[in-house]
Amino acid sequence: MVIAADWFRIPFSKSKFQAGRIFMGKRLVILGGGFAGLTLAQNLKDPRFEILLIDKNNYHLFQPLLYQVATGGLSPANIAAPLRAMVRSRLGTKVFLGEAVGFDPHLREIELADGARIPYDSLVVAIGMVNHFFDHPEWEKFAPGLKSLEEATLIRERTLNAFELAEKSTDPKEVDALLTFVVVGGGPTGVEMAGAIAELAHKTLCGEFRNIKPELARIILLEGSPRVLNTFDEKLSEKAVASLLHLGVETWTHARVQHIDGEKVVVKKGEVVETIPTRTVFWGAGVRANPLADKLALATGAAQDRAGRIVVKKDLSLEGFPEIFVLGDLANYSHQEGKPLPGVAPVALQQGHFMARLLKARADGEPDPEFTYHDRGSMATIGRSAAVAQIGRFKFSGFLAWVSWLFIHLMFLVQFQNRALVFFQLGWNYLTFNRSARLITPVGKRKKETG
Amino acid sequence: MVIAADWFRIPFSKSKFQAGRIFMGKRLVILGGGFAGLTLAQNLKDPRFEILLIDKNNYHLFQPLLYQVATGGLSPANIAAPLRAMVRSRLGTKVFLGEAVGFDPHLREIELADGARIPYDSLVVAIGMVNHFFDHPEWEKFAPGLKSLEEATLIRERTLNAFELAEKSTDPKEVDALLTFVVVGGGPTGVEMAGAIAELAHKTLCGEFRNIKPELARIILLEGSPRVLNTFDEKLSEKAVASLLHLGVETWTHARVQHIDGEKVVVKKGEVVETIPTRTVFWGAGVRANPLADKLALATGAAQDRAGRIVVKKDLSLEGFPEIFVLGDLANYSHQEGKPLPGVAPVALQQGHFMARLLKARADGEPDPEFTYHDRGSMATIGRSAAVAQIGRFKFSGFLAWVSWLFIHLMFLVQFQNRALVFFQLGWNYLTFNRSARLITPVGKRKKETG
Repeated sequence: MVIAADWFRIPFSKSKFQAGRIFMGKRLVILGGGFAGLTLAQNLKDPRFEILLIDKNNYHLFQPLLYQVATGGLSPANIAAPLRAMVRSRLGTKVFLGEAVGFDPHLREIELADGARIPYDSLVVAIGMVNHFFDHPEWEKFAPGLKSLEEATLIRERTLNAFELAEKSTDPKEVDALLTFVVVGGGPTGVEMAGAIAELAHKTLCGEFRNIKPELARIILLEGSPRVLNTFDEKLSEKAVASLLHLGVETWTHARVQHIDGEKVVVKKGEVVETIPTRTVFWGAGVRANPLADKLALATGAAQDRAGRIVVKKDLSLEGFPEIFVLGDLANYSHQEGKPLPGVAPVALQQGHFMARLLKARADGEPDPEFTYHDRGSMATIGRSAAVAQIGRFKFSGFLAWVSWLFIHLMFLVQFQNRALVFFQLGWNYLTFNRSARLITPVGKRKKETG
Repeated sequence: MVIAADWFRIPFSKSKFQAGRIFMGKRLVILGGGFAGLTLAQNLKDPRFEILLIDKNNYHLFQPLLYQVATGGLSPANIAAPLRAMVRSRLGTKVFLGEAVGFDPHLREIELADGARIPYDSLVVAIGMVNHFFDHPEWEKFAPGLKSLEEATLIRERTLNAFELAEKSTDPKEVDALLTFVVVGGGPTGVEMAGAIAELAHKTLCGEFRNIKPELARIILLEGSPRVLNTFDEKLSEKAVASLLHLGVETWTHARVQHIDGEKVVVKKGEVVETIPTRTVFWGAGVRANPLADKLALATGAAQDRAGRIVVKKDLSLEGFPEIFVLGDLANYSHQEGKPLPGVAPVALQQGHFMARLLKARADGEPDPEFTYHDRGSMATIGRSAAVAQIGRFKFSGFLAWVSWLFIHLMFLVQFQNRALVFFQLGWNYLTFNRSARLITPVGKRKKETG
């Protein structure tokens, strides 16, 4: 296959090529179609820019609801919208499926995995974070994290398979291990996962098995620090633990994971070392910058923090490279609060909007604006009708917080159709405890059958 | 893991085992949770039977709508319902995830892939058909068929990827080949696939690309016989070809495939040999009995027809083995029309109901009933608002046929929730030409990320 040296200017042809106009504007390359990158592409409505949005997936993923896919409440397509459909009306914007592998900031080019080199006038890097296992990369295969649709369906497969195997086993110890689920990390992701698994086991699957009682499944949430949700107010952490207990989740704090394999998790709880026999472990304990960020830092000399995030200036650009910007989870923006802004969707969305303003200002010859984050609060949900929310000095929990959570998340779901479908699906699930997307579609089997 | 030698009688335990009653009734093993097997399990409401339903998937699949998943119109979970949920209220029914690998009809046992041996008093085999490539098994990897969710998502991935690659290519020949889609086989599956791909390319994707025009994509339907839908009336075949043409599908009849590889399809059309450069080929030309059927035939001495289907008696049992039954697509039942009943859902559903009656009659000591098929007609859909239907002497096509098709298919969708969701989704797609489940989730990538 021939790859264009310059995708911005693909030649005309009598074949099936589009006879569109050739842009002569400023070439903006956006890496990553997440909240930050997509918001920028949708909001930079300025004919002076031609935009190339590059993502390794053909969809924008609504990550905050990934845990629902992992526990069979929603289908992958409910929380993923085709990128092309999202920027369809923006004729100056092209979408390419691809993966960046290198940067040449002096030539102003990026290199893609298929060898193509893409020139740019401005570059926005918004490629987010990946799971991080600290000094134990070997844990990854036993304890998948929750950053992609592939991981979410893997977690769904493993969870459901554990119940299926338990139903067939006659060894009580084996059954106990199969019906024990461990979630590592008591941040919002871990809390949501643990709550959703508990609902799946204790409500949805209840009555569907004959040899086991899924309602007796143990779900253990491990948190190394003294409390879960430690970025929230202390009272809300207590509420969260109470809600989790109500759902049947054991919360262990001060619990540091020592070892994970396919048979067990070893935990140091204060001075006591405990071994939990389990077949199913999930990782919500740590993320690190996309490895590509290290290459960007190397090429530009940009500073990175301990998690690999790139330190940005007040206008989100890099020191010495005013045409390169880092947005979203990957950016370490510490100018406002003295510490980096959290890696949450609202920050990414606001940075995407900001970047559209900045590029417009530059094209107009105006001075660069500075980014300011407006904190509209944070929230975490703990299964059916329970959530905690913190909005400035306001703190609330329970049903009201849950309804707010539902409302805000649906508002942000980017495509109308998905919003209505997800609303319908979540409403139905709420009324019936049903989770209809409980499909086991194993990787191995698919390969065998089709390959 | 310990596997029960006799799953019907798993011992009590103080652990998480269910303290349910132990059945002492007649042990019925059902292989396959398709239309036939599931219908039987749901309708044999007789406490004298204990039922073990074994399937290699944890869901019942609504195969007639698979082509919608393959073209991004529906999500896998829209057309698949968890088997356990379907038989939840039937306390005498157990569901096990497993795959049979052998039969011992004299000992009355089956063997599963994990080594377990399951005894039975009655055995119902309803494991359906698989894709068949005649003397060319090597074609399979270039031309996936449409029998499973895994294949449907693979087809979805290949179709969408072809457009993505074309958008990036600068070689007109390459673009032409990427935008050519070949469907082999002009039966209902092939006709539905070709129509759906045409809608995807010519309507849904229209306006989403900048370098290519998806509306110029070529979709070619190849049929070896003189007409498509050759089990239908000749007039309806003509209507179907006209509807396909309207959607932009070229129909080639008398077209015999000589060769398929990753670059092209070679077709003999009458005396002329034509080469179609294409990257994307789908197989709808032939099915054969599940390979396991050969083992059953060998063990029981049952006759098989050319497609490997098992010849059954008037009560669907096997000659010499009145306690073994074959149902659904896998059964060759020729007592009624002189030729085998077609491999369609209504036959399987009616056979499932019949089998429940027969087993009840046997338990009551009454004589075996005989199976009779009530033909309520057949239909095929050709994309948006077009279909052909044949009900006895009635033949109709167009919008009315399409509405009937929609109504009948939704009626049969087994779970209420799915029915409503699918209705919502198809209605939305109808109004907007939208296909929101257009996700590329490649196998290879998923392995790398998670493994």
